[in-house]
Amino acid sequence: MRPSGRTAGQIRPVTITRQFTCHAEGSVLIEFGNTKVICTATAEEGVPRFLKGQGKGWITAEYGMLPRSTHTRMRREAANGKQSGRTLEISRLIARALRAAVDLNALGENTITVDCDVIQADGGTRTASITGACVALVDALNHLRSKGAIKTNPLKHMIAAVSVGIYKGAPVSDLDYPEDSEAETDMNVVMTDTGKLIEVQGTAEEEPFSFDEMNDMMQLAKASIMELFEAQKTALI
Amino acid sequence: MRPSGRTAGQIRPVTITRQFTCHAEGSVLIEFGNTKVICTATAEEGVPRFLKGQGKGWITAEYGMLPRSTHTRMRREAANGKQSGRTLEISRLIARALRAAVDLNALGENTITVDCDVIQADGGTRTASITGACVALVDALNHLRSKGAIKTNPLKHMIAAVSVGIYKGAPVSDLDYPEDSEAETDMNVVMTDTGKLIEVQGTAEEEPFSFDEMNDMMQLAKASIMELFEAQKTALI
Amino acid sequence: MRPSGRTAGQIRPVTITRQFTCHAEGSVLIEFGNTKVICTATAEEGVPRFLKGQGKGWITAEYGMLPRSTHTRMRREAANGKQSGRTLEISRLIARALRAAVDLNALGENTITVDCDVIQADGGTRTASITGACVALVDALNHLRSKGAIKTNPLKHMIAAVSVGIYKGAPVSDLDYPEDSEAETDMNVVMTDTGKLIEVQGTAEEEPFSFDEMNDMMQLAKASIMELFEAQKTALI
Amino acid sequence: MRPSGRTAGQIRPVTITRQFTCHAEGSVLIEFGNTKVICTATAEEGVPRFLKGQGKGWITAEYGMLPRSTHTRMRREAANGKQSGRTLEISRLIARALRAAVDLNALGENTITVDCDVIQADGGTRTASITGACVALVDALNHLRSKGAIKTNPLKHMIAAVSVGIYKGAPVSDLDYPEDSEAETDMNVVMTDTGKLIEVQGTAEEEPFSFDEMNDMMQLAKASIMELFEAQKTALI
Amino acid sequence: MRPSGRTAGQIRPVTITRQFTCHAEGSVLIEFGNTKVICTATAEEGVPRFLKGQGKGWITAEYGMLPRSTHTRMRREAANGKQSGRTLEISRLIARALRAAVDLNALGENTITVDCDVIQADGGTRTASITGACVALVDALNHLRSKGAIKTNPLKHMIAAVSVGIYKGAPVSDLDYPEDSEAETDMNVVMTDTGKLIEVQGTAEEEPFSFDEMNDMMQLAKASIMELFEAQKTALI
Amino acid sequence: MRPSGRTAGQIRPVTITRQFTCHAEGSVLIEFGNTKVICTATAEEGVPRFLKGQGKGWITAEYGMLPRSTHTRMRREAANGKQSGRTLEISRLIARALRAAVDLNALGENTITVDCDVIQADGGTRTASITGACVALVDALNHLRSKGAIKTNPLKHMIAAVSVGIYKGAPVSDLDYPEDSEAETDMNVVMTDTGKLIEVQGTAEEEPFSFDEMNDMMQLAKASIMELFEAQKTALI
Repeated sequence: MRPSGRTAGQIRPVTITRQFTCHAEGSVLIEFGNTKVICTATAEEGVPRFLKGQGKGWITAEYGMLPRSTHTRMRREAANGKQSGRTLEISRLIARALRAAVDLNALGENTITVDCDVIQADGGTRTASITGACVALVDALNHLRSKGAIKTNPLKHMIAAVSVGIYKGAPVSDLDYPEDSEAETDMNVVMTDTGKLIEVQGTAEEEPFSFDEMNDMMQLAKASIMELFEAQKTALI
Repeated sequence: MRPSGRTAGQIRPVTITRQFTCHAEGSVLIEFGNTKVICTATAEEGVPRFLKGQGKGWITAEYGMLPRSTHTRMRREAANGKQSGRTLEISRLIARALRAAVDLNALGENTITVDCDVIQADGGTRTASITGACVALVDALNHLRSKGAIKTNPLKHMIAAVSVGIYKGAPVSDLDYPEDSEAETDMNVVMTDTGKLIEVQGTAEEEPFSFDEMNDMMQLAKASIMELFEAQKTALI
Repeated sequence: MRPSGRTAGQIRPVTITRQFTCHAEGSVLIEFGNTKVICTATAEEGVPRFLKGQGKGWITAEYGMLPRSTHTRMRREAANGKQSGRTLEISRLIARALRAAVDLNALGENTITVDCDVIQADGGTRTASITGACVALVDALNHLRSKGAIKTNPLKHMIAAVSVGIYKGAPVSDLDYPEDSEAETDMNVVMTDTGKLIEVQGTAEEEPFSFDEMNDMMQLAKASIMELFEAQKTALI
Repeated sequence: MRPSGRTAGQIRPVTITRQFTCHAEGSVLIEFGNTKVICTATAEEGVPRFLKGQGKGWITAEYGMLPRSTHTRMRREAANGKQSGRTLEISRLIARALRAAVDLNALGENTITVDCDVIQADGGTRTASITGACVALVDALNHLRSKGAIKTNPLKHMIAAVSVGIYKGAPVSDLDYPEDSEAETDMNVVMTDTGKLIEVQGTAEEEPFSFDEMNDMMQLAKASIMELFEAQKTALI
Repeated sequence: MRPSGRTAGQIRPVTITRQFTCHAEGSVLIEFGNTKVICTATAEEGVPRFLKGQGKGWITAEYGMLPRSTHTRMRREAANGKQSGRTLEISRLIARALRAAVDLNALGENTITVDCDVIQADGGTRTASITGACVALVDALNHLRSKGAIKTNPLKHMIAAVSVGIYKGAPVSDLDYPEDSEAETDMNVVMTDTGKLIEVQGTAEEEPFSFDEMNDMMQLAKASIMELFEAQKTALI
Repeated sequence: MRPSGRTAGQIRPVTITRQFTCHAEGSVLIEFGNTKVICTATAEEGVPRFLKGQGKGWITAEYGMLPRSTHTRMRREAANGKQSGRTLEISRLIARALRAAVDLNALGENTITVDCDVIQADGGTRTASITGACVALVDALNHLRSKGAIKTNPLKHMIAAVSVGIYKGAPVSDLDYPEDSEAETDMNVVMTDTGKLIEVQGTAEEEPFSFDEMNDMMQLAKASIMELFEAQKTALI
């Protein structure tokens, strides 16, 4: 029934490649099926001005898509002179989710900037970004520890994310582009590996959804995210 | 226990003033306690290029805050040369919610632009905006019908929105600024008057939240939004 | 003869509401008939870099219009990415006029930023802005005195402004939109309550005007502005 | 008493060089003493969208300063990414003044764009610009007539402009930079060669000015502008 | 003597991977050692306005770097709101070089947009971009032919590019980052596979260079580019 | 055979006028035939942040064209809100060339900013700019020496530049606009008066060029530039 032949709760094959590029403190290529995102984590000393002198760190994120990561070419945001609302919204989501995974006091006055650049898009780019970004973040935190910049591990828990939705009347997990573009409802869920919620964003694209449908989607999301934590663990061994 | 002395599920006094300004087809001042937003709905013939010739209408929205609507003055976005990510995110949310309330085919090739401008902020500006915008939208749709531009009422259902959150460990409804700035979790919920969901956006500001906490917040939201529908109805008589 | 039935020198009813919003040190809603402007004055410690260390204060102003304050919706300047020449010109005019009302040395190293946001436009928005801004400025200066930030009152005199013009061949005062859009000449005059001039800006929109016509307009302006000082006084009691 | 040794009503030597550059339909170098401005008038077929199909023409203007036209280098506006409020204000002033000199109906659907670029500044750049721009405009109109694009001369009258002010308590004409930076009041006056007013912009820089002072300045301006019309006539022979 | 141990004329290992991403008509990952660039070619019907109705096609290009493609993170140009001069200069170079490889008349009214995005930088990103872009261009042209949009092959010849320079007094080919940052002179050369020159850009970074040194560099470049044509041929089999 | 009747190696008459404007430390009008550029050099204390504390100076440059310096009016870059790629590329070229002429250590922590503004364009504006800028730079350096800001002359050698190209199959020097717009190849060469190369930028506009053609162009350039050094010397006496 799903165009890909997947079952309702079946996510796409997930591949996580660490050290994908050589300069960043953390560099991950994450693939959710045909969706491919490069996530790099850059660790720098110092914090933005509003945090100076508080002994706390900061985590920020930027999201982008290569112009031809999509079916038809999108205009390059750098050439447009501004980032779209969608881009800024996703950047803010990724950053907020990562900050919720880290004890910023334990990070000290260091800033980690995570860049998530989509090189091929097939739905779910923001959830793949968050899932990959967390692995890149771990590598950057380990880098800081190994060079002595921080004493303890600031990571409170791993985070991962998946999109779920109502497609042709039934809840499904990890929507690809053909599903996403026709789904009645789309919900992005970010969780901790302790089973708690970081972010829930559900949107009725076509039809309002019921509380029961929301619960069904939440259960699907929970199961799928648990699989993503396994993929992260395997990659981090 | 709440700084305002309200009970957990008690929303602030809601006032909806129609025809607040004289030029717009719909013009509403909505007040959620000290939060005050001017919502105007502008009806114009024609649609954006991507919709031309399809016989469908469009609804879009823009959100803004007067520089001194807040405790300390914010820089004017027009002077900054760009809208912040937060502004764009809220504009997109309002527009998406309103589109879900309307049968765009019945709207014909007309565009309604809703402007939500916060003149005084005390938490919950985006939910007040959505709730007031829906009333302004009704007036603009009635204007289109009365001048014969549309035949049937394109409104599928009323929508309204409230913020709920976990404040000092307990779920509360319609957070004001003192609560919002200390809440562990913040969730904005948009519903239809048929009891269904349009948008759910929950964010762990400090601590991840459990599925049970989410359910509690959802129930609070449902009850509060029902009160908002009453306020809308009273205003529209 | 005037569309509104007013006599040549008759200004529209003027209403000045102080403490219109709750956060700003000065907050005024001023109405010149259907023209309505929110004027807030924000007092902040410190001065712009070019004034640092001179012991002098600074006053600046920004003007804006809500998108649907006008008959047809104007594009939002924040979304356009820049303020129009008209907006910048009016902002500069308001700021210059207010600075001429204040002894900047007595203000000490404090900055007052006045925001004039038009919520409903019917001609004369810049003169209403100046007249309302001066009241908001008084409240902000009083705030600074009451908290001990300044010792003496830096206000040298009140200022107020009116537009005059040649409409259908005759000089009239306080043009509303229907008059303004057809006037041959339009002149904005800012005066002190000591009867002196701060700013005179006269423009031939259609036909050049004579020295005699200019004198007639100046006399009308003087009389009208004296009425505005009465309205300010009443509001400030 | 004036730093330059001039009498109160004495303007600086004025030089007007036509055909200063070779590509523009009108190209003038105007010098008011050490103030030097290149004014070019470009005639193009067609009008902006808001005028299409009305059979009327349009005149617009842009003002700029070379970065080192001033005592210390100003940042290049093209590099800043925006024009300052002052630049836009002067551009609007020049355009408005030129439009008041021309019968736009007689211009037909042609647009004339006047560029005034200051290559050396010593006060009075906007009045020199207007005075030179009018000569460049005449050349561009003659170009249109000689190629048959227009039948009659759309010029209604010549215009010219001068700045006057109160310097050390006395009214003076054509302020140079040392005077301008210390003047109590500064007034720019644009007139027609039929002795009427196009634009009056008076500003109290330091001290409010009286109605009498304003009249004195206006009389000085009138006499000086008459001299400028002589300079224009000589150049146009 | 070279940090990498390479001989003066030895280029880095070159890898060209076609169909690197799935949406673009041409998609190539090119590697010059540690320099890695994704080059996609997008074929679209129609041409920019200035070419409409001439029956000719157009080729354009945009260059970008992922923020952490470099040793330290660069600010994202989309977030900065503008592309740097360096970015625009390289984009123009790539586009010009590709246009010189193609008979634009034979391309018909089609546009090919080539995006070169550096995911890892180690010197020579612009020459790697040109060399990879030509392969992506070939795939896009073949796509147009196979779908019947063009009749004949518009490709006049292959192009490839290499950087050469004077490093520690001696000419070397294909500079990597450690060499590039210390080279006295840097020259980028673009050639056709018929042995002719498309572009030569030589710059004295530290010391002026002699005509003899220039000739030496040109000879090195020629030999290296011939190797690149072999790599392209192998990839295109 | 050349439209101007010049021989292949004949450059246009060159005029260099020093002290063209009065404020800048160096101010030159350079004319290559009908191409006229104002070059000003501004000397300021201090250096950009990336150089602070190293005891070295900096030289930067900006290039611009008056809107009607060309056959048809170009849009003003300041009004566009950004500089074109071509403008930035030429600015970078001029700055790089001037830095190669100066010992930045001997300059001390001073910055020289050169502005090259084209007031009339007829081909070769960038080479005229470089040639004139070097003279303005000399004047600014002498200014610094005469006021004691630097001890020794930081100038290592004079620089000058010319464009050469293949026009109707034959190499020619100093292309004017009619030649430039039809040339098969265009090459800009910057040299020192010690006979060495600073910059070589050759581009095949239509047809690839051979190594022999390149050599021919280089020889023409060398001879022409030697004439430019004579013109500089004459101007600097």
